[in-house]
Amino acid sequence: MSNYVCLHQEGVSSIPKLIEKAYANNYNVVATSINANMVPFEPDESDPTYPATILSAVDWNSKVIFTLSDVDVDSPNAKLRQHAKEVLLRDVAWAEHLQNVGSVMVRLRGPENENLAAIVQTKTKGNWFIQVPITNPELATFEHRKDASAEDVALAEQNDPWNWWNKLRFAVKQSTKVKVVIELNDSDRPSKETVRRWLGEPIEAIIIPSSLFVRNRSNYCVLKKEWQVIIGHFISVRANIIISTNPTDKALSQYADYLKKLISENCDTHELNSYENMLEIPLQPLCENLDSYTYEVFETDPVKYKLYQDAVQAALLDRVSDEEAKTKLTVVMLLGGGRGPLARAVFNAAELTKRQVRLYIIEKNSNAIRTLSNMVKTLWANKDVHIFSKDMRDFSPPELADIMVSELLGSFGDNELSPECLDGALKLLKPDGISIPYKSTSYINPLMSAVLHQNVSQLVSTVPAFDYGYVSLLKNIYHIDEPQALFEFTHPNRAEKIDNTRCKVLTFTIKKDCVLHGIGGYFDTHLYKDICLSINPLTHTAGMFSWFPMFFPTRPRTLKEGQNINIKFWRCVDANKVWYEWQVITDSKEWEHHNICGTGYNMRL
Amino acid sequence: MSNYVCLHQEGVSSIPKLIEKAYANNYNVVATSINANMVPFEPDESDPTYPATILSAVDWNSKVIFTLSDVDVDSPNAKLRQHAKEVLLRDVAWAEHLQNVGSVMVRLRGPENENLAAIVQTKTKGNWFIQVPITNPELATFEHRKDASAEDVALAEQNDPWNWWNKLRFAVKQSTKVKVVIELNDSDRPSKETVRRWLGEPIEAIIIPSSLFVRNRSNYCVLKKEWQVIIGHFISVRANIIISTNPTDKALSQYADYLKKLISENCDTHELNSYENMLEIPLQPLCENLDSYTYEVFETDPVKYKLYQDAVQAALLDRVSDEEAKTKLTVVMLLGGGRGPLARAVFNAAELTKRQVRLYIIEKNSNAIRTLSNMVKTLWANKDVHIFSKDMRDFSPPELADIMVSELLGSFGDNELSPECLDGALKLLKPDGISIPYKSTSYINPLMSAVLHQNVSQLVSTVPAFDYGYVSLLKNIYHIDEPQALFEFTHPNRAEKIDNTRCKVLTFTIKKDCVLHGIGGYFDTHLYKDICLSINPLTHTAGMFSWFPMFFPTRPRTLKEGQNINIKFWRCVDANKVWYEWQVITDSKEWEHHNICGTGYNMRL
Repeated sequence: MSNYVCLHQEGVSSIPKLIEKAYANNYNVVATSINANMVPFEPDESDPTYPATILSAVDWNSKVIFTLSDVDVDSPNAKLRQHAKEVLLRDVAWAEHLQNVGSVMVRLRGPENENLAAIVQTKTKGNWFIQVPITNPELATFEHRKDASAEDVALAEQNDPWNWWNKLRFAVKQSTKVKVVIELNDSDRPSKETVRRWLGEPIEAIIIPSSLFVRNRSNYCVLKKEWQVIIGHFISVRANIIISTNPTDKALSQYADYLKKLISENCDTHELNSYENMLEIPLQPLCENLDSYTYEVFETDPVKYKLYQDAVQAALLDRVSDEEAKTKLTVVMLLGGGRGPLARAVFNAAELTKRQVRLYIIEKNSNAIRTLSNMVKTLWANKDVHIFSKDMRDFSPPELADIMVSELLGSFGDNELSPECLDGALKLLKPDGISIPYKSTSYINPLMSAVLHQNVSQLVSTVPAFDYGYVSLLKNIYHIDEPQALFEFTHPNRAEKIDNTRCKVLTFTIKKDCVLHGIGGYFDTHLYKDICLSINPLTHTAGMFSWFPMFFPTRPRTLKEGQNINIKFWRCVDANKVWYEWQVITDSKEWEHHNICGTGYNMRL
Repeated sequence: MSNYVCLHQEGVSSIPKLIEKAYANNYNVVATSINANMVPFEPDESDPTYPATILSAVDWNSKVIFTLSDVDVDSPNAKLRQHAKEVLLRDVAWAEHLQNVGSVMVRLRGPENENLAAIVQTKTKGNWFIQVPITNPELATFEHRKDASAEDVALAEQNDPWNWWNKLRFAVKQSTKVKVVIELNDSDRPSKETVRRWLGEPIEAIIIPSSLFVRNRSNYCVLKKEWQVIIGHFISVRANIIISTNPTDKALSQYADYLKKLISENCDTHELNSYENMLEIPLQPLCENLDSYTYEVFETDPVKYKLYQDAVQAALLDRVSDEEAKTKLTVVMLLGGGRGPLARAVFNAAELTKRQVRLYIIEKNSNAIRTLSNMVKTLWANKDVHIFSKDMRDFSPPELADIMVSELLGSFGDNELSPECLDGALKLLKPDGISIPYKSTSYINPLMSAVLHQNVSQLVSTVPAFDYGYVSLLKNIYHIDEPQALFEFTHPNRAEKIDNTRCKVLTFTIKKDCVLHGIGGYFDTHLYKDICLSINPLTHTAGMFSWFPMFFPTRPRTLKEGQNINIKFWRCVDANKVWYEWQVITDSKEWEHHNICGTGYNMRL
């Protein structure tokens, strides 16, 4: 049931006919009550309901979302509460009978959902879709009421449905089977921040009531620009669409077609989407040789090597005047040649600037050397190029370099040990030589991402998962606050005593109640002068995909609007390894100190 | 790389050209050495080999099986051994560079493979295909040698390549990444039992040398009948095919087309094949209501309900003569009505025999009652049928039954608690009433199945997996000996004091060296007179798929040809549950006693 546009109607007399109608109008799933009101409590031979056999098991599972009776199992009235529980348990039993892997949908009515949480946890098969209004429905009613005081309005505003969901989420132990369905409504448009926060939740779908549609001049059903933007945000995190209408609605296919167009406009379909929200252990190219597959992926980045070429080009032009072009040789040393993409960039730069270049390629991966050697023999037979199968830290060059080029950067800048490697290669560079890149900076910010948290939690049984940093194509996330600069490294570093340890505390402000699930990690690097590469979300280099952000998990905790949190981050070094530690500190409390002594994620020297 | 026909050639100068040739001749994978001999030990700029870039990473992974150098890393000669290790490690490094999820193939040369096992365990990416000759190649050489004594031949016969593999398998800790590739050869045809034993191993493929093919009268390359049968056995467990030829062979497409035909003839494509070798926890319909999906699957069995109908029909004819047909009513009580398939069988039987039937349907699943009620109102409006939403053990009928019909049988006969249920329903039956079925018997036999063992082992971290019985569509198994009858239950059981506990020891004989991985469980049942249902492999009812066999795991142990083993099996009962215990006992040792006190698999009353 992935990527669907669903038709939601209630008061339907025949589910097979609803499915037929939905399919005829370009929907591929329906949501409807399972006529539970017609199902007697005590099965009674004299009063049968419809049989399970009206649909095949496959159709029950794949074509129908069951909306459960809209009863309040957490009502303050004991009698109502008891009745509601019986109704809901009856619905769930019937749903579990009809579907073995399907989904039921239930609507939150307020902040108290303790009994609902208990019922959610008793159902073992399939998923729960928790329907949550995007803003408190009470707010909408005030528009039509004269008696509401300013105080009433303020109270309703504070009673934020996200908090209803948040309380339920913890009550069901953050189960991966419980997803959220956001209900839009035509009388109240959510703020940008409200929408953005939901993107960090495990969103199954959004419900669009047909009343959100307006007619355009050609009498077509369309959405206003503001709603298009809001819905576009949800589509971008791959939320499905549920259109809610009444059974007599005649514009069904217009809604579906309109939404399908909106989906195709807002849903990026890049090749890497299978990586979304996945956690990967960062590469360690220094201690583990990269394989050919990894090289191949990196080489296809359409932007990165062009910017390296621009940087080398600018450096060559700065060092060698037009007059010296034919006579003055520039020695370029490539630290980490891989399968040759940076060498190509250097040769291109030399050709474009018509400067004389001698290229030394140092590469420690003997498997990559084989491919490089072949390139020297074939592609670069007429170039002044020399390959050395060495670790740059142990290499004695035949001559010193004017320009040192490297791409030893990980998603967090220094996490593939570029500081240690480049410091070790300092002896290869002339006193006035330059390093490309010459500076890199890491950035962090606090994130809410229920999906990433669930993924981390699933690793806990096998590894100390909360002491790892992960590489992840972040998708279902909410940036709690903007990234800030953390650690900086410059090259060449000619300090007497080089210290690559770091420690810093950064303060972030919470804009809206939310849950902290971890810390996002990014970097930017200056290659030459103002030529930069960046994966900081605020300045991301357009079109570059070589690096996914990092994610450093924390234990989930609810944060309050207006609150400040401090994030303390360490870069530690010993004789054998480098590692990060991190800790969240609030006014009242120091949270868990992660990865002490590098017992989880560490980078071997 | 699933379901492939692979072209294996050595001495190939260009891998891309080999792939091109293979594809043009209807192969979808190639196997070849990775020209490792050309790969220098110390990467050397002056002596390059081919670059990794001759194929894309996807092609390296999906189109090429790498055959490693045929060197003896376990040679008794220290110098040879050392050199062989260096060669093999070099090959593995290059293979790991080119493929990140691909496979390497290496050939066993004899019983000693300790060093090979160590190297296998160092490679972390992709799979190992271990090439094993199906019979000792030495045997073939005797045909051409006059000097071989009878003793030599006997020794070579004892030196069984299965034992080479078996030793290696344990040395690599039964890794799921290590699979076996069986090499056929034209000079020695394996016995039936030799072939059957390999079917219990994790077979990746078989290698067919082109020399196995002969020309038929139309000058087409074909296989002799005997080889067709042998290869058909391997195909039936979904082994892939590797055709091994020399680079100048002109009949490539004939081999591929012939094998594809053989595959389509021997590979069953039933709908349930996704269940093969999977372990499922047995259903417990007494304490957990079946869902609609499960009912639907059962109802589609084309054979089972027809045999029930035959049984009821025969019973009606026996009880009611033609003269009484219009006047004598037969009260049939259906214990467990589900969604109605047995009721249909009863009505069909009544119609065909023109006998008068009143049907009481007792069903404890209130969800199924809803579907039954609807059927009474619609399909069976003119029948004498009455539904009761009750547990048969608590039911007080309006009258007693002449015939009691039930299908409370699990894969092991009594494991869905039919003895307890039918004993409890005894009070519903007239003194001369009959039960359909009237007898059921369980059967067991020892099995080798490396794949099932691996699947059980993967559960160990979360449950006491070796104390469970599983339902499994057995595919990759070797029946070490034939099934024997274990426990029998007859109905109605009018004994004064009913005892449904059982204990029995059965003795099995080992026909060939093998590994015991567990015990297969089956049953047959007599419905009426000689009308039977059976899933005992020796007597399996044709076309019936309602029950998969059971599998009771044991810890793997190698057994020797001619040895006897005893399997002791208990059926235990307490106030709340029923469970099995099992234990293997040999002359020298009592193995682990499984599921003591029912702490693992047990059936709740």
